[in-house]
Amino acid sequence: MEKAAIYHRPESEYASLYTTDELRLRLRTKRNDIAQVDCLWGDPYSQVKRDGESEWGYERTPMQIIARTDVYDYWGVAVSIATHRLQYGFELTDTAKKPATIGYGDQGFFPGTPEGIKHASMFRLPYFHDIDRIKAPEWVSNTVWYQIFPERFANGDPTNDPAGTLPWASKEHPGRTDFYGGDLQGVLDHLDYLKKLGINGLYFCPIFKAYSNHKYDTIDYLEVDPDFGDKNLFREVVEAAHKRGMKVMLDAVFNHIGDQSYQWQDVLAKGQDSRFADWFHVHSFPARYEKTDDFEEAKNITYDTFANTPHMPKLNTANPEVQEYLLTVAKYWIENFDIDAWRLDVANEVDHHFWRKFAEVCHAAKPEFYILGEVWHSSQPWLQGDQFSAVMNYAYTDLIKEGVVKKNITPTHMVDSLNQQQMLYADQTTEVMFNVLDSHDTPRLLTECADDADLMRQAEAFTYLQKGSPCVYYGDEVGIDGHEDPDCRKCMIWDPKKQNQDMLKFFQQLIALRKEYAAVISKGTTDWRTVADITGLVHLVRKHRGIHLHGVFNFGEKPVAIKHVHKTDILMKQGVDEKKLAPNGFLIYVKK
Amino acid sequence: MEKAAIYHRPESEYASLYTTDELRLRLRTKRNDIAQVDCLWGDPYSQVKRDGESEWGYERTPMQIIARTDVYDYWGVAVSIATHRLQYGFELTDTAKKPATIGYGDQGFFPGTPEGIKHASMFRLPYFHDIDRIKAPEWVSNTVWYQIFPERFANGDPTNDPAGTLPWASKEHPGRTDFYGGDLQGVLDHLDYLKKLGINGLYFCPIFKAYSNHKYDTIDYLEVDPDFGDKNLFREVVEAAHKRGMKVMLDAVFNHIGDQSYQWQDVLAKGQDSRFADWFHVHSFPARYEKTDDFEEAKNITYDTFANTPHMPKLNTANPEVQEYLLTVAKYWIENFDIDAWRLDVANEVDHHFWRKFAEVCHAAKPEFYILGEVWHSSQPWLQGDQFSAVMNYAYTDLIKEGVVKKNITPTHMVDSLNQQQMLYADQTTEVMFNVLDSHDTPRLLTECADDADLMRQAEAFTYLQKGSPCVYYGDEVGIDGHEDPDCRKCMIWDPKKQNQDMLKFFQQLIALRKEYAAVISKGTTDWRTVADITGLVHLVRKHRGIHLHGVFNFGEKPVAIKHVHKTDILMKQGVDEKKLAPNGFLIYVKK
Repeated sequence: MEKAAIYHRPESEYASLYTTDELRLRLRTKRNDIAQVDCLWGDPYSQVKRDGESEWGYERTPMQIIARTDVYDYWGVAVSIATHRLQYGFELTDTAKKPATIGYGDQGFFPGTPEGIKHASMFRLPYFHDIDRIKAPEWVSNTVWYQIFPERFANGDPTNDPAGTLPWASKEHPGRTDFYGGDLQGVLDHLDYLKKLGINGLYFCPIFKAYSNHKYDTIDYLEVDPDFGDKNLFREVVEAAHKRGMKVMLDAVFNHIGDQSYQWQDVLAKGQDSRFADWFHVHSFPARYEKTDDFEEAKNITYDTFANTPHMPKLNTANPEVQEYLLTVAKYWIENFDIDAWRLDVANEVDHHFWRKFAEVCHAAKPEFYILGEVWHSSQPWLQGDQFSAVMNYAYTDLIKEGVVKKNITPTHMVDSLNQQQMLYADQTTEVMFNVLDSHDTPRLLTECADDADLMRQAEAFTYLQKGSPCVYYGDEVGIDGHEDPDCRKCMIWDPKKQNQDMLKFFQQLIALRKEYAAVISKGTTDWRTVADITGLVHLVRKHRGIHLHGVFNFGEKPVAIKHVHKTDILMKQGVDEKKLAPNGFLIYVKK
Repeated sequence: MEKAAIYHRPESEYASLYTTDELRLRLRTKRNDIAQVDCLWGDPYSQVKRDGESEWGYERTPMQIIARTDVYDYWGVAVSIATHRLQYGFELTDTAKKPATIGYGDQGFFPGTPEGIKHASMFRLPYFHDIDRIKAPEWVSNTVWYQIFPERFANGDPTNDPAGTLPWASKEHPGRTDFYGGDLQGVLDHLDYLKKLGINGLYFCPIFKAYSNHKYDTIDYLEVDPDFGDKNLFREVVEAAHKRGMKVMLDAVFNHIGDQSYQWQDVLAKGQDSRFADWFHVHSFPARYEKTDDFEEAKNITYDTFANTPHMPKLNTANPEVQEYLLTVAKYWIENFDIDAWRLDVANEVDHHFWRKFAEVCHAAKPEFYILGEVWHSSQPWLQGDQFSAVMNYAYTDLIKEGVVKKNITPTHMVDSLNQQQMLYADQTTEVMFNVLDSHDTPRLLTECADDADLMRQAEAFTYLQKGSPCVYYGDEVGIDGHEDPDCRKCMIWDPKKQNQDMLKFFQQLIALRKEYAAVISKGTTDWRTVADITGLVHLVRKHRGIHLHGVFNFGEKPVAIKHVHKTDILMKQGVDEKKLAPNGFLIYVKK
């Protein structure tokens, strides 16, 4: 038995309240090393008599393998207890020819015997506190998002175009500082288009007054950018969206502010005497930097910034004045405009202390509010229930791109790593993760697929069967391509003849499927029935309340024989020819 | 290489800011499996050119083994970076004959090659936020506490004795409901005694108005119990203590309230209509229970309680009214009486959400405030910097009792387990842990030692060389014995002829030593130079800034030859005879 591999951590993703009454426990062991794990659990104050002596009275429940990777097996069990107080331990039996049994508790290993259990220190969840539970807004796992980069989605009102606005889509490759006139009226005009697509969540890149076309260099968090419209128009957009059953998410850029903001301008003008001097992290006054050839890259900056760009001075969120200001902003757009979610830019570089206050403010204003952090790496520190609901799940979806699109990793490596990612978080967190295959910060998926539309569709279909809430990056559905930023921010194609109608139809179908089977996909178990590196065949079954949703994918280079040929229960397919599945092909079917 | 054993967790005790600028990183590996670990670290935005291509620019620092157990090696390194932004990974080389090198980062393992590092996902501490850092009050690691059970320490004012008060120490074994008249005047009268003993921290068991002799069944958190005195007297005690350089800690019993409180009495009287109905967890009204033979054990209780005692109804700390009430209490005794610390009873059963608010209130009132939770098991969930400063370190000191006193475990097992316990927490937390060998909740140490005073002294000496703040349970220093509660709550012995003067002198010496070498003991490295199960010899060296503090202990049954015989640098000793150390013996010496 490989004892050094056995791991559990109380009050973490390894021991998390799923509902008020249900605790989900996990244990990690070395892959294939352990044959059986029993969870021993009960009220810590519960006593029974054995041989005349009083000892702890516990239950014993076998655990199941819930996920596997190349290195680990993860075991899981759900436990409920009327007193809401729990202590628990594990009893493990290994796979050796002469199997050994050992106990594992709060002080490590103990003999797997009644006597060993009697004297062992157990793990604790001292009381099931619902107030500490990780809560996921129920609506998110049923949501398919649409990400709008407002400057490039639709120009509904030419009167607000900034000076120098270029004709819509007039360049094959947009420049870094181009303006094309996209605005909120454009969004309003096309809500029915999005409704028809099946979208029920809008994610807006920043709309507040800012200097650039991307608006991540905020000038005023309490104003809509005049290039996009005004507050009344935004209110109309939210109301119209809500009327169509769509939630609305705004982008909050709280890590830094734009250098054109009056706060930073005041610091530049007055230095240490500015009343905003402590709103930032200025190491020596006057605040200054040395330019390089790159507008966004400076040297010897005397203040903290986002990355190395001197135009985005970092805010000091430990300053109570800054906190109050930003919390006012957070509340303002919820209370006055009824938004449903905040997406938090560069969320990982802002302190946890601030995010806890932020979450309190948002949930007080709207209990089912969704808080989405931009964090590209492992995110447990933000996802313990007191800060974010979820993060942009790049660490998960990048694996799909590596495995399905770029073929840099084998199907086995991809599936192992996807499982590993899901074991980082509580189940209810995974259910509301924000799954993006591309965004304004990455190349377009079609371009990643070397313009192979079949491959792109296969990657999307695979992603839509995963737990988490998928998001369409505007225009992906009509075949827009593009390399890294700024090329991934091309103008939306509105001419039906220029739109890829096959792709559009595909997205409509896939989104409808995702919504119809939302419960199965977000709450179902995951059974990787086949993961074959030689053929590239991957067969995934998601099960929930008697419904079995099957996805079969050919990630290989040759057609693969498949068994399933029923016609009636097929929901979607591509490259299915009699009993063979072509490369880039997939088949999604359901059994009830 | 045993990959399954390799573990790191970002933003936990494995990656914790020790000071504003210093991050301490840890990595866990299987014992003896890894020969070398290098930490690769740098600003995530730092780029260097290699072969014409831009890639991450990082530093490489070898890690050292900082702790070992029977199962694991723990590696550590301290890292500072001017930009306060960090990404990092590890490169491990194993101990095999043909050693292999592998990388370990945020998405698991990667090839230990420049190319592997180039494409790897690294761990992150996105920004060093001092506001999120775990802060330990500096004074605590220099403090030796004295725990006072007020009813049994000294009766300074017979006029406030409750009816039926028994003559002081009139029973060999105090009964569960006895009163002996101890009070705050008694404490005030003996502060100089404590000063002479070397004490610089007083920890009071509850002093608020309550029903029982132990006062854990609070009636009014805003009143001093009249059996003990009044608020003016308590203020005098605090002032007199502060004048003598002693800090003052009170006991807050916030998990539950006494059933004689007006809040609970109102619930009993008015049921669901009581304005306090939601202050508790009443599952069905009227609140009731079935008595058993044991006063503290009931059946079929219709409300949540502490353990199964119907007289301690659990408070609903998720109720904002209850929060406000308890936070007012927390603040009241700090602001009006200048206390320095709260000890929190049954702290593990109260929600984290409440403790975060509690910590904010306390630290706003007094920045260097110490918050000590009663948690007997692993306590990471409370020790992340946002809740407690430390916990009562029973899980640590119980190992000393098992190894030194009861000999249930070998010296090796004890040392391995002590190391394991320290790896649960950040270094600054370990430095302010509250190390108790006995308390009002356990048998007296002398009794655990079967009245062997030498053994008791040896256990104390060993404990005082550990990181953490030691505590004398009143009367241990004069040789009081006692079994489980209530026997461990005997009246203090004040007659010098009845006091064990050798023990008293020993404690004076040991406390003086602990205070003189506070920096070495709390901040020094730990070198277990000898841990010999056959002889029972344990030689521990604590090093800090050129000072080497040695402790040599014989935990075996026969005298053991020891090398060190210098006379000048010996600080304390017992059972040292020429070149031999007797069973129960110890030798503490220093080299500068």
